[in-house]
Amino acid sequence: MPFQSALKRPRRPGVALIAASVTAAGIAAAGVRAAEAPPPPRTSADIVREAPETAWRTPDPNDVLLMTLPSGTVWIELAPRFAPRHAANIRTLVAQHYFDGLAVLRVQDNFVAQWGDPDADAELAPGAASAAAAPRARPLGAATATLPPEFSISDRGLSIARLKDRDTYAPVTGFVDGFPVAADPATHQAWIAHCYGTVGAGRGETVDSGSGAELYAVIGQAPRGLELNIAPVGRVLKGMELLSALPRGGANMGFYDRREQHVRIERVQRLADLAADQRPDVKVLRTDSREWADFVEARRNRRDAWYVHRANAIDVCGLTVPVRIEPRAAK
Amino acid sequence: MPFQSALKRPRRPGVALIAASVTAAGIAAAGVRAAEAPPPPRTSADIVREAPETAWRTPDPNDVLLMTLPSGTVWIELAPRFAPRHAANIRTLVAQHYFDGLAVLRVQDNFVAQWGDPDADAELAPGAASAAAAPRARPLGAATATLPPEFSISDRGLSIARLKDRDTYAPVTGFVDGFPVAADPATHQAWIAHCYGTVGAGRGETVDSGSGAELYAVIGQAPRGLELNIAPVGRVLKGMELLSALPRGGANMGFYDRREQHVRIERVQRLADLAADQRPDVKVLRTDSREWADFVEARRNRRDAWYVHRANAIDVCGLTVPVRIEPRAAK
Repeated sequence: MPFQSALKRPRRPGVALIAASVTAAGIAAAGVRAAEAPPPPRTSADIVREAPETAWRTPDPNDVLLMTLPSGTVWIELAPRFAPRHAANIRTLVAQHYFDGLAVLRVQDNFVAQWGDPDADAELAPGAASAAAAPRARPLGAATATLPPEFSISDRGLSIARLKDRDTYAPVTGFVDGFPVAADPATHQAWIAHCYGTVGAGRGETVDSGSGAELYAVIGQAPRGLELNIAPVGRVLKGMELLSALPRGGANMGFYDRREQHVRIERVQRLADLAADQRPDVKVLRTDSREWADFVEARRNRRDAWYVHRANAIDVCGLTVPVRIEPRAAK
Repeated sequence: MPFQSALKRPRRPGVALIAASVTAAGIAAAGVRAAEAPPPPRTSADIVREAPETAWRTPDPNDVLLMTLPSGTVWIELAPRFAPRHAANIRTLVAQHYFDGLAVLRVQDNFVAQWGDPDADAELAPGAASAAAAPRARPLGAATATLPPEFSISDRGLSIARLKDRDTYAPVTGFVDGFPVAADPATHQAWIAHCYGTVGAGRGETVDSGSGAELYAVIGQAPRGLELNIAPVGRVLKGMELLSALPRGGANMGFYDRREQHVRIERVQRLADLAADQRPDVKVLRTDSREWADFVEARRNRRDAWYVHRANAIDVCGLTVPVRIEPRAAK
């Protein structure tokens, strides 16, 4: 189950002396009689397992991409609310089968895995005689080659499930529609935070040079300094390890040295491209739900018995919104 | 070069309109005449490249471990200042060749890679008839099986190169001897932060059940909630990708399902075990140097031309202390 990635702890659970006493004190303060045994605290895993169906959201199948690599499928949810033009352009590219047969070109340790057309930058590659000599870039068809920057949106009317803890990089952090978000009330900007699993659109020298034809996913410590410099377009729902465990590239910035190292993308489809009765059932825990609030609190203060100290804090990239992807039950 | 991991940016550099104007304004405010062209801002890479030899520290070769995997060597610096008993026990284990032939047992995506004796927990493994039936655990010899917890040290007398930005998890963050550190002046505790590349000693149910015989390295978003629950013993200086790119384990918590998946540790040696004239020259940028302060500032506000927005912030796990490891020059 994807949300098992939340079950992070070192080997073998253990005794939580401080945690147990804090729990008892908290319940006593809430007026529960000491004679009543307090219910065992729920871990984040308990909360996810027990969440009712109403706490789960079904993403629009037009916004869910299935990127098939030789090793399996990476599931990505686009975020048209945050990057509408990029999302539309990517959907156009996918409808044209643009990505089919392209490749993961770059894997830089503790940073990003990036994919696109190996020939799109042929004119920049060492050994290319000239731009004219490398005309093999795949045409974008009905998609556009440049887009206005979508580095942030207005925070007006945006309902953010805010985190209570301070963040190093932004005055406000929280979640919107299952995406990690940062915001600045002073400038009325909000944007998807660059967390592990965030997918963004690579760009060149100018801020409008991204198109969504070259994408990356964060595979290391959140590179928050990228925020407001580039367009985040979504996040990986499942299959991160198919990107994060790829061999690192040996060339500058983690690009692979040789074409033979490229990891072929068999195809990218939208979930909507599958027949309705063939689509796996994709559910994302609603970040406007009570269950999500409980999940966040359980991660702020781990109830697992192994913990003897509670952090009493969590940052926006320290949380991964739970996802369930299951084969559609036969009706 | 290891410090090239600092050169993180999306493909193709670009124009930094805001960055350029901020720089010019800053220099004008400092009293430089407008007619003088300001020097080009130095990037973190420039700072590392130009750092004088006095800005580099040579770690004690007794504290540098070389863990050889089939794919190459992982370099680890122990931190005896923060975990003296663990460091001593690990050195004792290494001197006994304890780790030679053991294995990486667990790789959990966005969390840790963990290594040790596949048979040490045989009594807990599914299918083991009983503890008595699995007596194959490698003896620890002169090393001890349990150690008092070394989850933090006193901050008294500790000189921390403090970061100026707020941290979600601790009142104070910074660096000591090249290690990322968090501290709480109220409790006078200081500890190595659980950042990408931090190495810790796995423990069981009780806080004294770790020994250093089972170690892990963080391979994902900093799991800061582990802090004050477990003993950090050092950090990876080089070769992180040999751990972070390993296949993820399919069993609970990322343990490998089958022994055939284990990644064999050929051997672990101390740098001091090599003949003095055979030891590669290991240098770590001094975190009490002016160059480190400049490096931090360059990472807080990226000078690379591609950036159009400056974060004006960096968190303790968003920084990686530069390392140089070079073959010893023939004399």
